Amino acid sequence: MTLRLSRRAARLTSSLIRDILQVTQRPGVISFAGGLPATEVMPPLNFEGLADDYRQYGPSEGEPALRGLIAQKLSGLGMSCGVDQILVTSGSQQGVDLVGKLFVDEDAKVLLEAPTYLATIQALGVYGAVFKGLRLAADGIDPDELRRAIAYRRPAFVYLIPTFQNPSGFCYTDEIRRAVAKVLDETDIPLIEDDPYRDLVYSPVDRTPICAYLERAPWVYLGSFSKLTAPGLRVGYLASSRELFPSLVRLKQASDLHTNRIGQAWLARFLGSTEFDEHLARMNRIYAERRDAMQAALMRHFEALAEWRAPAGGLFFWLRLTCECDTLALLRQALERNVAFMPGEPFFPTPAHRYPSLRLNFSHAAPENIERGIALLAEILNGSAE
Amino acid sequence: MTLRLSRRAARLTSSLIRDILQVTQRPGVISFAGGLPATEVMPPLNFEGLADDYRQYGPSEGEPALRGLIAQKLSGLGMSCGVDQILVTSGSQQGVDLVGKLFVDEDAKVLLEAPTYLATIQALGVYGAVFKGLRLAADGIDPDELRRAIAYRRPAFVYLIPTFQNPSGFCYTDEIRRAVAKVLDETDIPLIEDDPYRDLVYSPVDRTPICAYLERAPWVYLGSFSKLTAPGLRVGYLASSRELFPSLVRLKQASDLHTNRIGQAWLARFLGSTEFDEHLARMNRIYAERRDAMQAALMRHFEALAEWRAPAGGLFFWLRLTCECDTLALLRQALERNVAFMPGEPFFPTPAHRYPSLRLNFSHAAPENIERGIALLAEILNGSAE
Repeated sequence: MTLRLSRRAARLTSSLIRDILQVTQRPGVISFAGGLPATEVMPPLNFEGLADDYRQYGPSEGEPALRGLIAQKLSGLGMSCGVDQILVTSGSQQGVDLVGKLFVDEDAKVLLEAPTYLATIQALGVYGAVFKGLRLAADGIDPDELRRAIAYRRPAFVYLIPTFQNPSGFCYTDEIRRAVAKVLDETDIPLIEDDPYRDLVYSPVDRTPICAYLERAPWVYLGSFSKLTAPGLRVGYLASSRELFPSLVRLKQASDLHTNRIGQAWLARFLGSTEFDEHLARMNRIYAERRDAMQAALMRHFEALAEWRAPAGGLFFWLRLTCECDTLALLRQALERNVAFMPGEPFFPTPAHRYPSLRLNFSHAAPENIERGIALLAEILNGSAE
Repeated sequence: MTLRLSRRAARLTSSLIRDILQVTQRPGVISFAGGLPATEVMPPLNFEGLADDYRQYGPSEGEPALRGLIAQKLSGLGMSCGVDQILVTSGSQQGVDLVGKLFVDEDAKVLLEAPTYLATIQALGVYGAVFKGLRLAADGIDPDELRRAIAYRRPAFVYLIPTFQNPSGFCYTDEIRRAVAKVLDETDIPLIEDDPYRDLVYSPVDRTPICAYLERAPWVYLGSFSKLTAPGLRVGYLASSRELFPSLVRLKQASDLHTNRIGQAWLARFLGSTEFDEHLARMNRIYAERRDAMQAALMRHFEALAEWRAPAGGLFFWLRLTCECDTLALLRQALERNVAFMPGEPFFPTPAHRYPSLRLNFSHAAPENIERGIALLAEILNGSAE
């Protein structure tokens, strides 16, 4: 029998990395691999007084109370955004999927940073997107390169993570944010701004959303509660310019009717309470300590092996290795010794710009394990370079 | 500016009915429109002792405990199905969307019942499916017509709701179930069996899943907890034949990573308890009363206006009107007098087979309101026929 599936299904790549990383669930493994918040830092979940009111079907757009809080937050960031432009999603990953559904026909061109978020490459790739990477530096992409790429490719949209980018941890300067907005306004190309890390901030830094600087170009802004509270709830959101919103709501409805209401109700209560600010301050204090622990460990063990910058926020260090080494082989060796990380290469949407690199998460492991794991990685790298 | 969206987005139809029905949320409206379980019959949600363990990211396939219970249930129905063939979804609506992603290229042919579930027409339509309806009678579709349609159309798959069908309430006989399975096995066409109503049963009736009779054809079985417990949780599931499963998991991962874990954890505890059987018995007792109340009211008021059968299970009466009336105009008149229903015509995937019809839900309204609402509908119909 020949099974006839969609061309979309044929584009599903097997995820070697995902399979390998399943072993990181083993107890005793020091994992720098995922983008997981630390379980011990998450707020306790208390559904008392909420649950029974939210058993019935709910609105596709999301719960009014939660949408109101989100609109308020985005307005505070300088975005011109009413509550009627907020759609609650099943995690911000669903926002990426809805964007794919909305914009991507087979062979549609998409511009994004090189490197960029792996699951975006996969989710948009399913719809047949053809990627063009924009070289990413520590202060952002090059607005002139963006303008040339738009002129040459006429992309369906540009997807950017300007704040504490995944995987690089980089954060665009305000100058570059404004310049990117100007290019998009002049060319009328939609911006998809993915912004899950903005509130994980450890040093003062520019981080006004690029969407706040747009005057004319269509936009979708993707937000997450997973990094701030509990990813198991699967509640994220998007906001969009007015012309895109009705289609996004209908696509959401066709995808899963609406997002689970219990998670939305808990979030609305938690975000609206004073506990939230205290929780966020504590989380950022603990993550800053872990960032500093990783920075110190890298200084001790990686000075000769890689280049990197300590990130001002987010969850990741990005190491550009100075050797031409096989990071997949390195991962296998590391896993044998109970340390996990993400090879950097899969984060590049095309082979162009690719270089040997590692993504190291610092939020999940305790500081003493960070030192131990980094020392071990350096030992393996030094050994394999010999 | 011309906004360039995907062809998919251009296929999004504005939902007139959906807009009209938003007024059914008004207090005082007797609604026969939705497919909503009665809030007063839902089990209380108690998350005590569960919540904090499920805050972190979870597996895309779903929680092992819940998957185990589902596999056990399906095996009990005669399906050959291991726990490694179960995928927990964000409501069974997401199962329909994943099936669309997996199978439907633009212009892919899909065979389904006429009438069928409205949201399936919309969700598959987004991917560009071209529908061919199979005439639905009270005992099921005609297996010979199915065979001819397959030979002529070579569809990507056949989508059926054999048990207490939405919108018709019809339930296939065992003979037709077996005959349909035989046609699919002989032609190797995949079956998508949507089965959200199976446990809402008020009179004894054949209801072995057609998937249980398949020996060779690929299959996806879609299940729901929304009708049995609390739709606000957004937890459903699918099971599939082995060759389809890995692609479905990857599509799920690209769509929203995984289903909310709190809902899964609560369901696993509830379904595994003795409370569940008691709850289900009580729910079916109450729904049977409401079905009987609607049957009695219809006998009193609709004998000259429509043909119907009292359903053995599920949530709906399906009325074939004897007049050539405009059901959308009827809906407007009914809403003015605070009664809501669903016009039947949108449930037909193509104009063929279409006839003037109403779908009446009996689970949501209390028995006294059922009598009042049905009397009012008959009064309006009698008035407009004059």
